[in-house]
Amino acid sequence: MTGIAMIEAAAARLAGQARRTPLLNAPLLDRIAGRRVFVKAECLQWTGSFKFRGGWSALSALTPEQRARGVIAFSSGNHAQGVALAAARHGAPCVILMPADAPAVKIDNTRAYGAEVVLYDSATQDRDALGSALAADRGLALIRPYDDPQVIAGQGTAGLEIAEQAEEAGIAAADVITCCGGGGLTAGIALALEAKAPALRVRPAEPEGFDDTARSLATGTPQRNAALSGSICDAIVTPTPGEITFPILRRLCGPGLVVSEDQVLRAMALAFAHLRIVVEPGGAVALAAALYAPDLPDTVICTASGGNVDPALFARALATL
Amino acid sequence: MTGIAMIEAAAARLAGQARRTPLLNAPLLDRIAGRRVFVKAECLQWTGSFKFRGGWSALSALTPEQRARGVIAFSSGNHAQGVALAAARHGAPCVILMPADAPAVKIDNTRAYGAEVVLYDSATQDRDALGSALAADRGLALIRPYDDPQVIAGQGTAGLEIAEQAEEAGIAAADVITCCGGGGLTAGIALALEAKAPALRVRPAEPEGFDDTARSLATGTPQRNAALSGSICDAIVTPTPGEITFPILRRLCGPGLVVSEDQVLRAMALAFAHLRIVVEPGGAVALAAALYAPDLPDTVICTASGGNVDPALFARALATL
Repeated sequence: MTGIAMIEAAAARLAGQARRTPLLNAPLLDRIAGRRVFVKAECLQWTGSFKFRGGWSALSALTPEQRARGVIAFSSGNHAQGVALAAARHGAPCVILMPADAPAVKIDNTRAYGAEVVLYDSATQDRDALGSALAADRGLALIRPYDDPQVIAGQGTAGLEIAEQAEEAGIAAADVITCCGGGGLTAGIALALEAKAPALRVRPAEPEGFDDTARSLATGTPQRNAALSGSICDAIVTPTPGEITFPILRRLCGPGLVVSEDQVLRAMALAFAHLRIVVEPGGAVALAAALYAPDLPDTVICTASGGNVDPALFARALATL
Repeated sequence: MTGIAMIEAAAARLAGQARRTPLLNAPLLDRIAGRRVFVKAECLQWTGSFKFRGGWSALSALTPEQRARGVIAFSSGNHAQGVALAAARHGAPCVILMPADAPAVKIDNTRAYGAEVVLYDSATQDRDALGSALAADRGLALIRPYDDPQVIAGQGTAGLEIAEQAEEAGIAAADVITCCGGGGLTAGIALALEAKAPALRVRPAEPEGFDDTARSLATGTPQRNAALSGSICDAIVTPTPGEITFPILRRLCGPGLVVSEDQVLRAMALAFAHLRIVVEPGGAVALAAALYAPDLPDTVICTASGGNVDPALFARALATL
């Protein structure tokens, strides 16, 4: 099970491979938020999201024989790209199962990293069953997007960096708001901070209508979302918290935060204007919470977890300025 | 006169104040360029451009008495913001003279950093004469945008970082393409690399119709631009190379590179898609040259010097994707 030792081992394997992304802030953004807001800019990570960390961690933890047979992943796009590039750099064959309605840029980029992309219909087909069948068929190692200890450990390396960067910035205590889908990033960061910076409390953020984690934390048991599509935050829409991740979240996280799509679009626009980074909707829910949620402390750190967004949707966000 | 000792002294004063911005690259961007392209992301610097470096360097080099009286600067926007924030953090009064047709976002932000903004008509009024008169009137120290040894030294700290980051990335030799207006950044980086990484050759990039530096380097004597407005690259439109900067450029730089506005817009869009950074037109000329100029070496480093761009213009760039 993932713990600080596994996260630190992943960090050693990721050294020189993943980027140490900057912790950004801006005086004019703080003024709008009414608090100090620091942004862990994982949109600047390889492939444009933190998912490269987990992908590299998982690939590098396989045996050479497993890597030679290849890997498979299923993802709306960011996990796909992270695994695809990590596989390419390991020289491992890679099959990615993606929903046919994923943003075109994510499908195109996944192919460009050298992966074989297999599309499926997210409304009618079960991606887990499809993925397992393909994996068994070809002898591929399945790299799950969040319910995988080595993937959680890889995402947790972002938490190690947050602990270091918070100390460098003189932050003694803060809420650390994460963009939360299945909970891999949230669980990894929470475990890293438990060990390295216990005064930093993790709080998962989600979009309205897809707040399974917030409701699960509130009730103490896993809740499901009514819908699995229809959100602009495609990167973090999952049916229910992960089996491995949820117990970690329940033990370590504060209450979940929920934001509207309009708040997400405005957060994307403010990140454009004041931080000069490109953040996708699912990667902007934490910043949206940092800007607009009530009852937050004076200092918050939030993840800008991904920046793979179709230009038309980004232009829609800019129109809120 | 600015030399490596003055740049290193500026770096010591900037330590903990300016950001060490990342050197970004992306496999899919390299594929489009047909070469390895590394981007020094100064759009992630405080105030969204490298100008904060020069502003802080100049402010911190003044006497306490000079700072108490205050400073004045004239700028289309990025130098304005860099000086305004540096002055605010030094507790120094600050007057900024800006053209009335500067991007609204730059005027607004300069005011938000606490500066007193005085607008002038760039078609009919001489900003140098206006600035000198205001400075004399109020006893303000004039901080010139490029023809100031301490400003050049401050911009040169980006060159020190490029030398270090190129070595970390295993880059033995490369062209370093800079976005060039008056030449402060170009001169500073060229001086830093002369001392620290002589295998990295600086080449200034400019937009078509405003290529005074390229023509000056080609002829060996300062040439002037026919027009002083009408470019989307407002940040780097200057009448002629600086008196202090040009001799440095003539001694150290390779031939200038010239790009079209369409190439600039496409470079902005590709930086959005593959690096997830926001780059303004004047800050994207170097990347445009890296992508589209002929006869470049296999590896280039370019500055993404600024990211302060009105949303409508950014949306226009995205439409090229």
